[in-house]
Amino acid sequence: MKRVVQKFGGTSVGTLERIQATADIVERSVRAGIETAVVVSAMSGETNRLIGLAKALCEDANEREMDQLVSTGEQVSAALLAIELQKRGVIAHSYTGVQAGFRTDSSFSRARIMSVECDRMLERIGSGEVPILTGFQGVNEQGDVTTLGRGGSDTSAVALAIALKADVCDIFTDVDGVYTTDPRIVPAASKIDRISFEEMLEMASQGAKVLQNRSVELAMRYQMPIHLRSSFVDVPGTMVMNEDDIMERAAITGVAYNRDEAKITIKGIPDHPGIASALFGPIAEAGLNVDVIVQNVSEDGTTDITFTVPRSDYRQAMKIVQGICAEMKARDVKGDDNVAKVSVIGVGMRSHSGVASKMFATLATRGINIQMITTSEIKITVVLEEQHVNEAVKALHSAFGLDSEVIAA
Amino acid sequence: MKRVVQKFGGTSVGTLERIQATADIVERSVRAGIETAVVVSAMSGETNRLIGLAKALCEDANEREMDQLVSTGEQVSAALLAIELQKRGVIAHSYTGVQAGFRTDSSFSRARIMSVECDRMLERIGSGEVPILTGFQGVNEQGDVTTLGRGGSDTSAVALAIALKADVCDIFTDVDGVYTTDPRIVPAASKIDRISFEEMLEMASQGAKVLQNRSVELAMRYQMPIHLRSSFVDVPGTMVMNEDDIMERAAITGVAYNRDEAKITIKGIPDHPGIASALFGPIAEAGLNVDVIVQNVSEDGTTDITFTVPRSDYRQAMKIVQGICAEMKARDVKGDDNVAKVSVIGVGMRSHSGVASKMFATLATRGINIQMITTSEIKITVVLEEQHVNEAVKALHSAFGLDSEVIAA
Repeated sequence: MKRVVQKFGGTSVGTLERIQATADIVERSVRAGIETAVVVSAMSGETNRLIGLAKALCEDANEREMDQLVSTGEQVSAALLAIELQKRGVIAHSYTGVQAGFRTDSSFSRARIMSVECDRMLERIGSGEVPILTGFQGVNEQGDVTTLGRGGSDTSAVALAIALKADVCDIFTDVDGVYTTDPRIVPAASKIDRISFEEMLEMASQGAKVLQNRSVELAMRYQMPIHLRSSFVDVPGTMVMNEDDIMERAAITGVAYNRDEAKITIKGIPDHPGIASALFGPIAEAGLNVDVIVQNVSEDGTTDITFTVPRSDYRQAMKIVQGICAEMKARDVKGDDNVAKVSVIGVGMRSHSGVASKMFATLATRGINIQMITTSEIKITVVLEEQHVNEAVKALHSAFGLDSEVIAA
Repeated sequence: MKRVVQKFGGTSVGTLERIQATADIVERSVRAGIETAVVVSAMSGETNRLIGLAKALCEDANEREMDQLVSTGEQVSAALLAIELQKRGVIAHSYTGVQAGFRTDSSFSRARIMSVECDRMLERIGSGEVPILTGFQGVNEQGDVTTLGRGGSDTSAVALAIALKADVCDIFTDVDGVYTTDPRIVPAASKIDRISFEEMLEMASQGAKVLQNRSVELAMRYQMPIHLRSSFVDVPGTMVMNEDDIMERAAITGVAYNRDEAKITIKGIPDHPGIASALFGPIAEAGLNVDVIVQNVSEDGTTDITFTVPRSDYRQAMKIVQGICAEMKARDVKGDDNVAKVSVIGVGMRSHSGVASKMFATLATRGINIQMITTSEIKITVVLEEQHVNEAVKALHSAFGLDSEVIAA
């Protein structure tokens, strides 16, 4: 018998009408003879409402109490969905993190799942019931409620699917899958039928945030396929799965971009061991995120380092770097908060030579200057002026043969 | 060291401002060196909001799911109060029914507390923490959330006070105590400083519903004094306590009334064993509440029975009774939905003779006709025409010496 875990996000349970539509999907699965377990998020807006109440009392509220507070959001949506399903004659009950056996560590607001003790859930699902779990939450050793952090419901769903040995984890969302690139830029972008876990991780980190990376990492470790699909239309979405199970491979699976970048270049730093940590230590301590880092081979005993940060962190990072570089006697510090990242991604590039040269040539033909380059095994990223993003994405999408033949009107 | 359980109802945590005012009260107790544990209800209106969501999906929602749903209300208010107290440097944490060890049976929506496993709470309170418990809820053997029914937070507070061996259970509400009668009718009504558990039970059942009867019964069984007091002004309220601990005793403690009554009289029923159950069985099956029942001694082999029901149940009760009486060949059925109940209550009447005669004489002097009389050990109740309620209450309050000497302007 087939077994599936279905996960529904906040918009899928955001109103009573949406809860009914979600119940339609679950009921269809049950009537088709599939053993079905469900994971839900809080009704959209509810988590923010609760956080707002707490912040109005205290900006810096205790994290344990915040978790006790916000975890109620999923409890409400799970119970409502159970009530709607029972009305239809589907046996369904809701379970909180503690009831479902989601054991976590004690890092309130960003807990990690230690184990899923799913005996009760296995028994319920075996008896024909649809267990409906509150996503995003668990319980620590002391019996305190913990939450997994924003978007943690995806991770809950994957963890449950693994524990229940489900065939697949269906993640329902408001898009119908992962696209070869942003359809707003390239109307010929097409839905990717199958994507490997690693590609999905790279796509997500490039701003195509349809799935929390943590959930993809977990699914990859346990080889649990994720079916990312629309809760609005009943069509196949994108299967995120083991690379080996994907038959045909193009060199490139997708083109991703991120506009929200700023770069900082330090020129002429005396090149001796430890400069990188002297530079990036204070930036990390200030809680700033560093993305791409490029260091060229040194000349004359000095070197240049360039790195990028989210644009919102730019001013603060600049201030820190200027202080450090004065101490280090670097020659110059320059910044630019008008840059963007464009990447081509695909496990196929391991076996297809020439991806990099084709990428650079495509951009050169259009007179687009490449400011920085970094590569991983399955990704090549360039940093360029923000104004060139649309043209670069379109050109690369076409050059790597991703344009779909039929373009929707 | 003194130990107290403080219970706050929905209006005391109904807004962020009220939560702050409630935190003032808790903080004052802690700073005075009193070991303090707190029980809270849901923010006022929240339980109804949640029930409304469920009812919109399904009129007849599963009770287990309803309990999972509505129990979130207290979780929110408890966490918010903990956050506010921590801001002030008071160590405080919130605990759900399961975390606080409130074991109940499995009667969802009207569960009974089986035991309070309060090891963790004792440890927390001993370490200087203020544990803040979600009232109204517990957990059954399967780990399912249960609720105690409306007003169950009072019962939670008393049960916790008993388990923690507290000195007193403070119940904060929007009135400042129990009055000798309704001040809207008798401006000279005064606050009762001390009232026995039994008197409180009788007062409550007469419509003076400031405390849930179940909580008073529990307190009586374990001799746990309840201090019923205002959350708005810091003055002593009414102590509900063991009769033996109340020194001075007037004959009468208070005068209670209930306007919401209707009476039905069956005349000339053949008097043989089983008529009462033949009559009241079907009424109970229809879910109607019967209050006062009076049966006079029989004459001529027939008897008369009169009973009262809440006015809203009158028509349905009348219909049932007419059917039964036709079968029973009773002579006549009469009804009146324009009656009310007035009672004088006091443990002192056990030792003071003449309470009943004084009551009847007081009403007779004013030409008020008594339609029915019932008595218990500490209460005498009369049923009369509704139009006489105000005059009867005023006259009795004065006749039994309850009028306060100083009348507020």
